[in-house]
Amino acid sequence: VLSLANELRTRFSAVRDQTEALAAPLSAEDQAIQSMPDVSPTKWHRAHTTWFFETFVVLPHLPDAEPHDPAFGFLFNSYYETVGARHPRPQRGLISRPSCSEVADYRVAVDRRVAELLDRIDEFDDTTQEEILGLVELGLHHEQQHQELILMDIKHVLSINPTEPAYRTGFDRLEVDTSEPAGWTSHDGGIVRIGHDAGEGFSFDNETPRHDVLLQPFEIADRLVTCGDWLGFMADRGYHQPTLWLSDGWHHICGAAWDSPGYWFAVDGEWHVFTLDGVRPVDPAEPVVHVSHYEADAFARWAGARLPTEAEWETVAAGDAVEGPLVGEDPQAAPLHPTATSDSGLQQLYGHVWQWTSSPYVGYPGFTTAEGAVGEYNGKFMSNQIVLRGGCCATPAGHTRPTYRNFFPPHTRWMFSGLRLARDAA
Amino acid sequence: VLSLANELRTRFSAVRDQTEALAAPLSAEDQAIQSMPDVSPTKWHRAHTTWFFETFVVLPHLPDAEPHDPAFGFLFNSYYETVGARHPRPQRGLISRPSCSEVADYRVAVDRRVAELLDRIDEFDDTTQEEILGLVELGLHHEQQHQELILMDIKHVLSINPTEPAYRTGFDRLEVDTSEPAGWTSHDGGIVRIGHDAGEGFSFDNETPRHDVLLQPFEIADRLVTCGDWLGFMADRGYHQPTLWLSDGWHHICGAAWDSPGYWFAVDGEWHVFTLDGVRPVDPAEPVVHVSHYEADAFARWAGARLPTEAEWETVAAGDAVEGPLVGEDPQAAPLHPTATSDSGLQQLYGHVWQWTSSPYVGYPGFTTAEGAVGEYNGKFMSNQIVLRGGCCATPAGHTRPTYRNFFPPHTRWMFSGLRLARDAA
Amino acid sequence: VLSLANELRTRFSAVRDQTEALAAPLSAEDQAIQSMPDVSPTKWHRAHTTWFFETFVVLPHLPDAEPHDPAFGFLFNSYYETVGARHPRPQRGLISRPSCSEVADYRVAVDRRVAELLDRIDEFDDTTQEEILGLVELGLHHEQQHQELILMDIKHVLSINPTEPAYRTGFDRLEVDTSEPAGWTSHDGGIVRIGHDAGEGFSFDNETPRHDVLLQPFEIADRLVTCGDWLGFMADRGYHQPTLWLSDGWHHICGAAWDSPGYWFAVDGEWHVFTLDGVRPVDPAEPVVHVSHYEADAFARWAGARLPTEAEWETVAAGDAVEGPLVGEDPQAAPLHPTATSDSGLQQLYGHVWQWTSSPYVGYPGFTTAEGAVGEYNGKFMSNQIVLRGGCCATPAGHTRPTYRNFFPPHTRWMFSGLRLARDAA
Amino acid sequence: VLSLANELRTRFSAVRDQTEALAAPLSAEDQAIQSMPDVSPTKWHRAHTTWFFETFVVLPHLPDAEPHDPAFGFLFNSYYETVGARHPRPQRGLISRPSCSEVADYRVAVDRRVAELLDRIDEFDDTTQEEILGLVELGLHHEQQHQELILMDIKHVLSINPTEPAYRTGFDRLEVDTSEPAGWTSHDGGIVRIGHDAGEGFSFDNETPRHDVLLQPFEIADRLVTCGDWLGFMADRGYHQPTLWLSDGWHHICGAAWDSPGYWFAVDGEWHVFTLDGVRPVDPAEPVVHVSHYEADAFARWAGARLPTEAEWETVAAGDAVEGPLVGEDPQAAPLHPTATSDSGLQQLYGHVWQWTSSPYVGYPGFTTAEGAVGEYNGKFMSNQIVLRGGCCATPAGHTRPTYRNFFPPHTRWMFSGLRLARDAA
Repeated sequence: VLSLANELRTRFSAVRDQTEALAAPLSAEDQAIQSMPDVSPTKWHRAHTTWFFETFVVLPHLPDAEPHDPAFGFLFNSYYETVGARHPRPQRGLISRPSCSEVADYRVAVDRRVAELLDRIDEFDDTTQEEILGLVELGLHHEQQHQELILMDIKHVLSINPTEPAYRTGFDRLEVDTSEPAGWTSHDGGIVRIGHDAGEGFSFDNETPRHDVLLQPFEIADRLVTCGDWLGFMADRGYHQPTLWLSDGWHHICGAAWDSPGYWFAVDGEWHVFTLDGVRPVDPAEPVVHVSHYEADAFARWAGARLPTEAEWETVAAGDAVEGPLVGEDPQAAPLHPTATSDSGLQQLYGHVWQWTSSPYVGYPGFTTAEGAVGEYNGKFMSNQIVLRGGCCATPAGHTRPTYRNFFPPHTRWMFSGLRLARDAA
Repeated sequence: VLSLANELRTRFSAVRDQTEALAAPLSAEDQAIQSMPDVSPTKWHRAHTTWFFETFVVLPHLPDAEPHDPAFGFLFNSYYETVGARHPRPQRGLISRPSCSEVADYRVAVDRRVAELLDRIDEFDDTTQEEILGLVELGLHHEQQHQELILMDIKHVLSINPTEPAYRTGFDRLEVDTSEPAGWTSHDGGIVRIGHDAGEGFSFDNETPRHDVLLQPFEIADRLVTCGDWLGFMADRGYHQPTLWLSDGWHHICGAAWDSPGYWFAVDGEWHVFTLDGVRPVDPAEPVVHVSHYEADAFARWAGARLPTEAEWETVAAGDAVEGPLVGEDPQAAPLHPTATSDSGLQQLYGHVWQWTSSPYVGYPGFTTAEGAVGEYNGKFMSNQIVLRGGCCATPAGHTRPTYRNFFPPHTRWMFSGLRLARDAA
Repeated sequence: VLSLANELRTRFSAVRDQTEALAAPLSAEDQAIQSMPDVSPTKWHRAHTTWFFETFVVLPHLPDAEPHDPAFGFLFNSYYETVGARHPRPQRGLISRPSCSEVADYRVAVDRRVAELLDRIDEFDDTTQEEILGLVELGLHHEQQHQELILMDIKHVLSINPTEPAYRTGFDRLEVDTSEPAGWTSHDGGIVRIGHDAGEGFSFDNETPRHDVLLQPFEIADRLVTCGDWLGFMADRGYHQPTLWLSDGWHHICGAAWDSPGYWFAVDGEWHVFTLDGVRPVDPAEPVVHVSHYEADAFARWAGARLPTEAEWETVAAGDAVEGPLVGEDPQAAPLHPTATSDSGLQQLYGHVWQWTSSPYVGYPGFTTAEGAVGEYNGKFMSNQIVLRGGCCATPAGHTRPTYRNFFPPHTRWMFSGLRLARDAA
Repeated sequence: VLSLANELRTRFSAVRDQTEALAAPLSAEDQAIQSMPDVSPTKWHRAHTTWFFETFVVLPHLPDAEPHDPAFGFLFNSYYETVGARHPRPQRGLISRPSCSEVADYRVAVDRRVAELLDRIDEFDDTTQEEILGLVELGLHHEQQHQELILMDIKHVLSINPTEPAYRTGFDRLEVDTSEPAGWTSHDGGIVRIGHDAGEGFSFDNETPRHDVLLQPFEIADRLVTCGDWLGFMADRGYHQPTLWLSDGWHHICGAAWDSPGYWFAVDGEWHVFTLDGVRPVDPAEPVVHVSHYEADAFARWAGARLPTEAEWETVAAGDAVEGPLVGEDPQAAPLHPTATSDSGLQQLYGHVWQWTSSPYVGYPGFTTAEGAVGEYNGKFMSNQIVLRGGCCATPAGHTRPTYRNFFPPHTRWMFSGLRLARDAA
């Protein structure tokens, strides 16, 4: 247990530091803005992840611990009904205090207490030790999820500004010359086993239980759909043919007046894209990103294909190493945009874009939620959402895995979402 | 073909007459009201079903046929993008003309033309004959769906009126004395086959292809959840415990201020219910009806159970005869409310309430939509909806079957929706 | 008193009959529609005016009188807080019952009781006699206001229907060949007296007290602004120059996408207008109608003029006979649209269009409201509204007078509203 | 001219410095928040007032002047249609860049250029000199208006924060022991002259022309309505009696659920108030503040009085010296809340609360707007607003005068608005 606690202390420091590194390029004002209800201010993410450790790790376990500030429980609870009342989500951008530096103080104070708790881990009985270490582990994965949210949220915040500021500059982009049609990887179907067995390594509850699924034979594309593919869809009036679209999707794009992916805009007839590295022309070789499920579904129909189910995706991806340009400790060193490939064979499974599947987000057979607040983590969101798989360019290194189930409502696209095609075997 | 055409002519008359019988108790004003966007006026249903026959059966096939009125194509198209522009759905209640009697004339005129077409069926080649007969068949099932919509919509229309008028009166209700706890029917799981094989008898495209599904062992309740069961949930503050609810569901009931099923209201502390037969006290023995998916899901969680998947439901129900108090030709002779039972063994599968499953509405493996307007019938609605099974007290006799997939968004409850519990085998 | 009562009985019959004559061309469905929140169904107007007599005349005075139907007090109260709860205004179009014929029965029943009361007027003491006769008088003027509302509301209802039905047909329109620039009538200003002295003849409370006002010298146009004038404003991009507009007005026309008067639409580049007599090309010689205060104000600014104050208008108009094509007992015999003139000299003061003034609707100096429900008639609406003067083509004959103050919010235009220019004396 | 220019240079520095002094207690985050659409961020006020000088003073007159930043013309234009497109008002709180320090740089840069222009004033011809000096004067009064807006806006911003931060602390409040009923000052009426003669001293265009008005005899209260008076209104269920209210007002308070003045809230049954100096119990002796026109009007009706017209107010107030606790150069030294009085005789006319009149905001007889952008300053807002008079505790010293016409929509109350009663002479 002590070595596990030590290992956790090291990871705890690294993950907490990475959050601060992500916020470092941002001014106090940048960190206070909520550009739409889905977005949370950077400052809020920094405080909320700290509140998570304080509320679930420190206060219930560290003797005599008091809340750092009694108001923070109300301000920085995200959605835990079990824990008590909370500040309304759409008003997170109206809170000027605590300031950025007060939030930094909060982080330091809670970090000290978590470290103290891990130092004193042998004072607790076995059950409590296991509970504490499990909650710290959960808190770290929770914080890594918010690291990705920080990047996708600040991208939206900056994009709203008419001056189009970049999150950072100077990152060189790989140029890839060719854009071959995608190849296909075949699978014979049959009974396959998916999900996490919860035995070794961390997993969220929604990845369990590991269970059997019956598949029909299918094929899956070797690479992601590219911007070039998408320009073909647009040129063929894909955004203007209602029969390509789900009814809800058609109404949504009409109401939102969408005619291209998120963050695209035309300058003198040429499509440009706003990225965290600044504005530049759309590169046809790069994977398309910031498309909603409705758009991904319509594209697949237009292409004579379909989206894969999550079981199909996992079956094909499970054998592959989790690689890709995921965000490491130094966010200045990683591309914060999906990158092109000219390689052949199955690739781009991880670290480029979250890939929409055709699977609504429901519990696996036998799924149950844990007791208490931690049980609110995943299960209660199993409604009106679609599963995405893979992990994207903004996902922290080490955070994703083949069984990881991400989920968003089908009309959303401010996350780094793209797609890979599938089809029934001939 | 001639005998098939004759048989269709007979059924055509019967189905068309039944629509008019359903409208008969209603005044011209009753038939013009749209009490919420989901509801369509009775007059609109009568005209739209007629437009369906005119547009897809008469005009493309009957030589020299002209539209009955050129404006009707715009007014009475429901959602067929392929066919052209249409009047906005939320404004159907703002159209005073054509009047009820002009709609009656429209029905008579199109009936004559369909009859003429069926009389002259041998003038067409084999392919066209098959197409015409298939479209008439589809039109009849379409009209039967609208017969049920007429009843659920007019129920809402009348309920909005502070004078609480009944659709009809004088129907005697069965009194059942006992309300035993529900028994459970077990199933061993394994690979089962569900869906319609499209070989014999009519089916909608969304019921196909028939395909294999892998089930875990499960149990399903022998009867529907009753009002008495639901009063227990309410007494235990089921509408006030957020941890019982999906997050979307909790927000919905808070926003809508729901604390009981649809059409329930308290008079001096006693729960009453508005029905098509008038207002009366809630009967604990009757199946609960007009609950949303969110409510059904929360109830099941409260009861320590879950909703069945649609595959589980169909596997259990497929062996059962389709019976129940479904609406026959004389709507005055059928109960328009689910009825209680004191029998034991698996029952109430059909003809009482549509039963919420846990299955989001998606296409079966290999599902494809037809070309053209008919292809818009089902597939484009496979988003943000949940499957219901069984058929209800307002479903026309002969219209439902074990493979029938009904679907509604999870927050809706103006249809006759209830539930049956399931659970994993111990 | 008896002769006054007799005279009132005769007028009561005439006014009540005219309401029914206005409704006669309309089907039950026409009379049930509420095409926007400002509009009330014809059936509602017929019932509400009856409720007014029942509530304020019959029930408090006729011994042993009972409400015709206990539900009607809730359904047909418009806005009298003193009288009790009421059905929400925006839901008036959702009420299919009572039916048109039940409303007709209601009218007959209340008519009988009012007649009975007037027959028995000498059974009451003097104060009560005066009160009863005053309330019947008020009720008749109230009903005449609703007669005009019936016409302006049904115009909107019919216009919403894509088939553009006419309220009536066959009315010949006067052709006028010339359209001279308007002449100007001058006034020297000084202290003038306006308002009703409440001594002889009926007036609403908001027309009193008669009082002195100090005017600067001014000029007022001899005729109304015509459609030809308005086409000049449109041709000069009047709807596209923000500096011509009040800020609220500019936002309103941008939000509503207005670029022409109400009921105007272009067919192949030619402006047409929907009228109660059907659709026809815009006639440049006719007064423009269905313009909001915002539009009238912008037009006046564009024309280098301004709108008159209500005191200016009344001062000029008071000497003129109240004439014009006002609606008589037979609505089929009157034009229901303003008519052109080629005469010279001050004219078109009454009976064509309500003329926007520049005066916000406030109480005259010394104005007080009556006690009780009748006091809610006018005073509580003195906020965010603008005074209009004159009376229009849909105003019943005998209903308007020089001191009459009509009022509407500045963005509204479904009433028959137009304008006459004014300017400071050189 | 040179001495006038020198005098302006001195005042320019003083006024610009005062703006910065007002912002000094606020963090960068405080200055970025827009807590409702009516509110603008402090940072925006600081930039917009600078843009006003740059756009109307510097760029048209200083040779070779370039915009400080080309994006600022779009970001910091408030409502000048003549000048070009602008950033949407409700999104001012979504702009994190330019940062507070970049805005400070902008202020310094424009200050230098204005100073340079005033230094070189003798290089221009007489007409241009007059124009420049007039625009600088206008810009200073404009900036003073925004100084008051900064205080009323930041009050709302801070109040939204659940931690209830104070803008400043440590200001001692005057305790006044008695609260006598208000006395009344009488006026005989007749023809009076109001408005600014535009001859000496600065005035806004809406204060002109000076003109005659005819008044009836009236009385006006010697002091403002106090919190104690208001508690009496609340205790008499003033917020729950519809007949006290204008119809629009009643709907507004029902929709907004108002039952007390703005910033009031009850703690354990005792009313408290949020002020810029922090939260404290309501003091009955202090003038009530943050009430809407609707509330002021209802209170007056309840009290058997009415609000004064603006002509009545000006007639009585014109003879009085403009005094009161107005904000001087050091905002830490002035009370930012209205203060109580125990003196007798007419008082509290200036420097406590803006006093609602009964007068809708319209142009005076003969009022015309200037050409160009400056003409958009006042005239285009003459719609749906009510005049307030006096000046409040947040108004800069030297900024108000007897003829000053402030105006707000009748439902608003985030400004420092209160009331003084009036009544017709007996």
